[in-house]
Amino acid sequence: MAVTSEATTVWTGTLFEGSGDVALDSSGLATFPVNWKARAEGEANTTNPEELLAAAHSACFSMALSLALAEAGNPPESIQTTAAVTFEAGRGVLGSHLLVSARVPGVTEEEFEAFAEDAKNTCPISQALTGIPITIEAELA
Amino acid sequence: MAVTSEATTVWTGTLFEGSGDVALDSSGLATFPVNWKARAEGEANTTNPEELLAAAHSACFSMALSLALAEAGNPPESIQTTAAVTFEAGRGVLGSHLLVSARVPGVTEEEFEAFAEDAKNTCPISQALTGIPITIEAELA
Repeated sequence: MAVTSEATTVWTGTLFEGSGDVALDSSGLATFPVNWKARAEGEANTTNPEELLAAAHSACFSMALSLALAEAGNPPESIQTTAAVTFEAGRGVLGSHLLVSARVPGVTEEEFEAFAEDAKNTCPISQALTGIPITIEAELA
Repeated sequence: MAVTSEATTVWTGTLFEGSGDVALDSSGLATFPVNWKARAEGEANTTNPEELLAAAHSACFSMALSLALAEAGNPPESIQTTAAVTFEAGRGVLGSHLLVSARVPGVTEEEFEAFAEDAKNTCPISQALTGIPITIEAELA
């Protein structure tokens, strides 16, 4: 079954002087302020497209890694993944870096790194993001 | 200046029986529940990677369109963009569809559609998402 998930941004005014609100329509969980300053300089309490992409990537990667470990007979206790997505005005999205730490009984550090590298490549969001480099650092907690 | 935005997912357990929380670290705006059921079947009050990607894409596209219109001498009053991202288990992310409605004084419907098509192609998140098809429907409000 295919599932379509939606989010809506309402933007008012120009890029540099205007601002927007982005709503998570499918879950109904939240509506956030979004603006150019948060994107180009960083700003607390305001999101930007890169932070939202990082959220998507960190969640997808964690799911893919969880699946791969369990399928190999090593279900994880926990996985923590931070995605760090970099943007530069005029250049665009420069890349997504995944920083992963996990508790996985019965797996060596080398085996874990191989699982993580594989999940980085097979996670559906990674496979959508073929226009940017994706890097990873993974270690057992 | 390059800006790095971060989000973190903490996942506990296996893909199908476990669950996670995804936090918007850079803005500090929120932490959401995320799980496989929300991704594969849809579920209120729980997010998934595709909804978060839709949020990123709708915000980025709205910014890009706002910039292009203002640079051409037609600053928008408002732009509303819904991104609909489709996922199918076993196939991955199938595409992102942008549905755009905007108030832009002095622009014809045909001109607006051309601006929207252009913003679809040049928006930095679109340029990162080269692994999936991106489609658009745009009209003046």
